[in-house]
Amino acid sequence: MKVKTFPINAGKLVAILHRTDAEELGLIAGDRVEIINKNNQKKCVAVVDISNYSVVVDQIGLFEEGIEKLGVKNGSKVNVTPTGQLKSLDYIKKKMNGEKLNQEEISTIVKDISDERLSDIESTAFISAIYMKGMDIDETISMTKALINDGNKLEFKKGIVVDKHSVGGVNGRATMIITPIIASTGLLMPKTSSRSITSAAGTADSMEVLAEVCLDTEKIRKITENVGGVIAWGGAVDLAPADDKIIKIEHPLSLDPEGQVIASVLAKKASVGSKFVVIDLPVGRYVKIKDKETAIRMAKKFVQVGKEVGMKIEAVITNGEEPCGLAFGSALEAKYALEVLEGKRFDNLAQKSCELSGALLEMVGKAQSGKGYDMAKEILDSGKALEKFKEIIKAQGGKIYSSEKIQSAPFTKEFKAGADGVIDEMNTKLLTRIARIAGAPSNKTAGLMLYKLVGEKVKEGDLLFTIHAENKDKLIAAEKFAFKNIPFSFKRIIIQTIR
Amino acid sequence: MKVKTFPINAGKLVAILHRTDAEELGLIAGDRVEIINKNNQKKCVAVVDISNYSVVVDQIGLFEEGIEKLGVKNGSKVNVTPTGQLKSLDYIKKKMNGEKLNQEEISTIVKDISDERLSDIESTAFISAIYMKGMDIDETISMTKALINDGNKLEFKKGIVVDKHSVGGVNGRATMIITPIIASTGLLMPKTSSRSITSAAGTADSMEVLAEVCLDTEKIRKITENVGGVIAWGGAVDLAPADDKIIKIEHPLSLDPEGQVIASVLAKKASVGSKFVVIDLPVGRYVKIKDKETAIRMAKKFVQVGKEVGMKIEAVITNGEEPCGLAFGSALEAKYALEVLEGKRFDNLAQKSCELSGALLEMVGKAQSGKGYDMAKEILDSGKALEKFKEIIKAQGGKIYSSEKIQSAPFTKEFKAGADGVIDEMNTKLLTRIARIAGAPSNKTAGLMLYKLVGEKVKEGDLLFTIHAENKDKLIAAEKFAFKNIPFSFKRIIIQTIR
Repeated sequence: MKVKTFPINAGKLVAILHRTDAEELGLIAGDRVEIINKNNQKKCVAVVDISNYSVVVDQIGLFEEGIEKLGVKNGSKVNVTPTGQLKSLDYIKKKMNGEKLNQEEISTIVKDISDERLSDIESTAFISAIYMKGMDIDETISMTKALINDGNKLEFKKGIVVDKHSVGGVNGRATMIITPIIASTGLLMPKTSSRSITSAAGTADSMEVLAEVCLDTEKIRKITENVGGVIAWGGAVDLAPADDKIIKIEHPLSLDPEGQVIASVLAKKASVGSKFVVIDLPVGRYVKIKDKETAIRMAKKFVQVGKEVGMKIEAVITNGEEPCGLAFGSALEAKYALEVLEGKRFDNLAQKSCELSGALLEMVGKAQSGKGYDMAKEILDSGKALEKFKEIIKAQGGKIYSSEKIQSAPFTKEFKAGADGVIDEMNTKLLTRIARIAGAPSNKTAGLMLYKLVGEKVKEGDLLFTIHAENKDKLIAAEKFAFKNIPFSFKRIIIQTIR
Repeated sequence: MKVKTFPINAGKLVAILHRTDAEELGLIAGDRVEIINKNNQKKCVAVVDISNYSVVVDQIGLFEEGIEKLGVKNGSKVNVTPTGQLKSLDYIKKKMNGEKLNQEEISTIVKDISDERLSDIESTAFISAIYMKGMDIDETISMTKALINDGNKLEFKKGIVVDKHSVGGVNGRATMIITPIIASTGLLMPKTSSRSITSAAGTADSMEVLAEVCLDTEKIRKITENVGGVIAWGGAVDLAPADDKIIKIEHPLSLDPEGQVIASVLAKKASVGSKFVVIDLPVGRYVKIKDKETAIRMAKKFVQVGKEVGMKIEAVITNGEEPCGLAFGSALEAKYALEVLEGKRFDNLAQKSCELSGALLEMVGKAQSGKGYDMAKEILDSGKALEKFKEIIKAQGGKIYSSEKIQSAPFTKEFKAGADGVIDEMNTKLLTRIARIAGAPSNKTAGLMLYKLVGEKVKEGDLLFTIHAENKDKLIAAEKFAFKNIPFSFKRIIIQTIR
């Protein structure tokens, strides 16, 4: 067949066939064909779409994904053959019917997701099944191993690779503090981070204020070997293609089956060669994990699955009832993390960063048991962590090395306390929402700056928070929302009045 | 924004935005926007795809679906606004978490599926949920009502509308015999049928050998009023758009949640105004319903749900252990049904057709209790049914009125018995498979013709079946498959030998 190219990103591998050809091949829309480029023998599997007029007989329509994968151009000749029924479909159905899957079955599904042989419908049925039926510990281990074997892997000739991961945190960029502390000690920390989905900023968004984060595997390896640490955007590297696709499917309905979260996190860590990992599990009303029991159950699974795939895991349960640091938004959070490194601030974000760093240092034997925190704090206080962070920024092609150089959005509105009191509760979901209405995360300079944390005394007229908006309209929208949805509550002495 | 058109059928409503615009609107891929044509105020909701080069800033890429729905052309101006979070997503999640949905929640989901506001991922999560969690009788009733309210409805000024439906039958075209019998009595039977998905032919495929089946709602109404009956392809009419989409999603994994099957069937019947319906539930090892208990449970639900939506239902459980009639394939099955109407054959297909027709005639009081079968057989034997069928063919623009005018594929291969015996079992799945390898259903003339049914005596050299293939290659492939997978077994006298 002759290729007809369409300069469109379809988001998946699609082949448009004329109805006549489809009928001849016995295909209906949604079936799959294997396409082979006759020139270079490159091949791919695509989902069939049928049209009577987008293509003519003996012509096959391909979008950007197919064009790239096959290395074809308009008019290239390809062979098209129907693929049989995929085994994965039987396994997905098996899981939907409540049966347990073994390693081979899970690996087959992961491979088919990774190679885009499964359609969105089929992949969603699988994710729905593991959400509704759950994965037991064996299946979670199988999934982790399958994801580790999928995609590229980073390997380092020497050095010990360590990492940390927060499950469902909201703000604060501990990674930007922990990575330089750890890298200062000679350990390797090649961190791949995500961008924001529902928060005001992801670590990758925040780091991008200071330096380049779209780094390929080779650059990540090189920078890590040269300076000990890197903070890159995970989406730019092909370390776990199946996992990236699974996350894309989980997103619209916020499906996050527990076993899949564990497998996904550990596989990403394994793909950069991590052997020692601290998992941070914040618990709170407004974060992903709402209760301690869930956190303990997940923590135990992390440790057990980690052991099965050759990783030493320490899972720590942390207080997710208040924000971590006072900033919301890419630039504000970057500035805040830099201020911690510069010694200008020391609060719950700095504390957490030193505790997690300390745990890692003890795990690998860099610090004696019980001395990890002190060692981490000493590295932070001495300015060594700041120097290391500047090296990292430089290695990632950055130019901003000081918190003072970071600009925030020009349209601001201050919110002050209307009465004296003590802050009892902060709703991080509402704070995030205000920051997003102000323009975060797509506008890096937009966000929100807090001045108080839970438990702090406030006097009438004290500054509570400032909104930084990208333009006047967004400022007004964020202001209105904040007035209607106050993200604070004060401690009450009178808890009930009887009349 | 200015429209840029792409002459492609994307299968759903998609809008391509430039990354800059998407960021400005706070959209990520998979989010939804409402698009309004400034000229005619037509609007639609589309799923966002983001590209840096398919479109430029302030341009929106639209595929055929969007172009048609909005009535736009290249360069048209439209307004684009993000839609908020859909309530349906909460309801889908609720069902996934095992909670029961009420009428309003189910109607909201069905409306959003119908209007294409839900993506494939979201719709699949919903179908997966009702497959894995089931729908109880209340939910099934809600779903039926929601599907009835979706799409167009046929209404007739006078006359009683009746219908029949087979759940998961394999071959034989009882509809082509029942419809003319019923229409001869003055009742109305506007039948919408499906095309084949996994079988050798659907009723719509078979009827298409004789007449036009792509009829719109208005034509179906007119023909029914004029001649009493019609056999149209359901896919060509917009009677149940949500149901059509649900079926498209169920297909790749053969998901057919029981409640959804019931709702889907009854809604389709209600949409053409049927008040009396016979539901045929074939039970057998090689058909959809494997055991009598399942059939009885489904039968009861059909009756109960029917009552709730104002329909009188009789559900009959039938023998699905052998083929219904001897033909497999569109033309062969059409020819066979015509031969029954012409009085040239009377076997299990004819018998079933008269029994089901009889049940309908008794339900509406056209025949006394216990006399329906006789009345139906009399209509068949007298030739009235044949005359009525010819009227239907004519009204649907057909030109073939005699079984002798129907051609079958020219490449044939006969299979004969290698020994004497009695046929004990026939595997209708294998028979279907052979017919499909020979070219069915895309080639109408291809298929398979049987000469014996279960229980019949066979002598060595007797003809068992003939393959009709569309070309020599397919004949050889079908022959090979049939030799390896013999679709018959003979009764054995010696059931075990001890040596």
